[in-house]
Amino acid sequence: MKILLIGAEGTLGRAVVDELGARHDIVRAGRSHGDLRLDLRDKASVQAALNKLGRVDAIASAAGKLAFAPLLELTDEQWALSLQDKLMGQVNLALLGVPHLNDGGSITLTTGILSQEPILTGVTATLVNRALEGFVVGAALELPRALRINAVSPGLLSESVASFGEWFRGFEPVPAARAALGFSRSIEGADTGKVYAYV
Amino acid sequence: MKILLIGAEGTLGRAVVDELGARHDIVRAGRSHGDLRLDLRDKASVQAALNKLGRVDAIASAAGKLAFAPLLELTDEQWALSLQDKLMGQVNLALLGVPHLNDGGSITLTTGILSQEPILTGVTATLVNRALEGFVVGAALELPRALRINAVSPGLLSESVASFGEWFRGFEPVPAARAALGFSRSIEGADTGKVYAYV
Ligand SMILES: NC(=O)c1ccc[n+]([C@@H]2O[C@H](COP(=O)([O-])OP(=O)(O)OC[C@H]3O[C@@H](n4cnc5c(N)ncnc54)[C@H](OP(=O)(O)O)[C@@H]3O)[C@@H](O)[C@H]2O)c1
Ligand SMILES: NC(=O)c1ccc[n+]([C@@H]2O[C@H](COP(=O)([O-])OP(=O)(O)OC[C@H]3O[C@@H](n4cnc5c(N)ncnc54)[C@H](OP(=O)(O)O)[C@@H]3O)[C@@H](O)[C@H]2O)c1
Repeated sequence: MKILLIGAEGTLGRAVVDELGARHDIVRAGRSHGDLRLDLRDKASVQAALNKLGRVDAIASAAGKLAFAPLLELTDEQWALSLQDKLMGQVNLALLGVPHLNDGGSITLTTGILSQEPILTGVTATLVNRALEGFVVGAALELPRALRINAVSPGLLSESVASFGEWFRGFEPVPAARAALGFSRSIEGADTGKVYAYV
Repeated sequence: MKILLIGAEGTLGRAVVDELGARHDIVRAGRSHGDLRLDLRDKASVQAALNKLGRVDAIASAAGKLAFAPLLELTDEQWALSLQDKLMGQVNLALLGVPHLNDGGSITLTTGILSQEPILTGVTATLVNRALEGFVVGAALELPRALRINAVSPGLLSESVASFGEWFRGFEPVPAARAALGFSRSIEGADTGKVYAYV
């Protein structure tokens, strides 16, 4: 299969490349790394990248930024970034991607454990991750040509404990290689409208 | 208690007034009806209305517009309306409302059954309703002064079957008076971070 992977150089994305790279042709995309450059916040750049690419069998995102801050200190800019990048960035990628997918192809988005387990300073993540899961189950009803859509929801990645484990005291870390299995299930399986949680 | 209710003249809001009006002092707010006028899409108008109001014991919203359309026909404007009105309109109401609430006071937002049960043309509703539920559980962790926040998630209201029942074939309608009980539980009870579903 030919797979477009956004965020291929990130912590999660590298594990997805390790899981799928030997079996499939992965086009590595990102904002500052990779074969194909795009910014999820900018629909025109996503459209331009897809046009360059042609048809694929799978579109996957292991990207998406959120602003973390105490509830009452979140600024309008932090709310806007969270909605524009991780939420609508991935929604727009999915919707713009539809005409570029071969029949039966798949879309895989990334959410995260904060969907179900809120933490202090994490309200944008709980909101955005649940919203993405809602998008996935809603969109699954309406995609044409047997196209499929699923989400992967990783726990705190083991590889990220050093960077932001202090916000997740007591959470059991999950190796990125485990969460990468969700991309395999979504892309190589037959599911649609599923959220694969690795916690 | 003194209760600010946004959308007091709507289908759900009227039932909330019927449930709580005899026991409490309700300030009826809306965009084109009521004692207090505000537009949830416009933070400045929400702030101005709250400043006029002074302190209250509860802020409740039975409002929130969404754009319904087939997944692949949703325009940028329809996405923006759905995020700005029902989602961020209610989020901003809650956050701006915090300094206007007496200690132990409550915030009650409205989501809806499409959160859990997607329908054709309803992807914005599934996304936004889940996002609001995420906001409620995340914000509940961080509100100061024993402030509380909950959501009410009604099924298709019996009173709305004539207007949009055709999109909900097979769904069991719920009298608005039942869903209004969720506002009573949130405002008159001790819960926080709950979603009361009436299906
Ligand atoms: N790390 C965790 O513990 C964890 C846990 C649960 C969920 N998640 C979720 O998993 C996803 C990936 O997290 P991560 O820790 O792997 O992040 P990361 O290491 O920061 O990598 C993110 C990757 O996404 C790309 N990217 C970021 N913003 C982009 C944009 N606007 N447009 C295009 N590409 C963009 C970056 O590309 P460039 O490098 O090319 O700029 C980067 O390669 C996020 O959605 C995150 O919320 C992470
Ligand atoms: N009806 C259903 O079957 C059903 C089922 C599940 C969930 N819900 C949810 O319940 C909520 C209320 O639905 P409804 O059917 O009762 O709606 P409705 O009859 O249209 O009433 C909505 C009320 O909210 C006010 N409103 C709308 N947009 C506003 C804005 N931007 N700023 C301030 N006020 C605004 C309106 O005020 P004015 O009249 O003053 O303009 C109106 O009184 C919505 O969130 C809806 O999604 C409804």
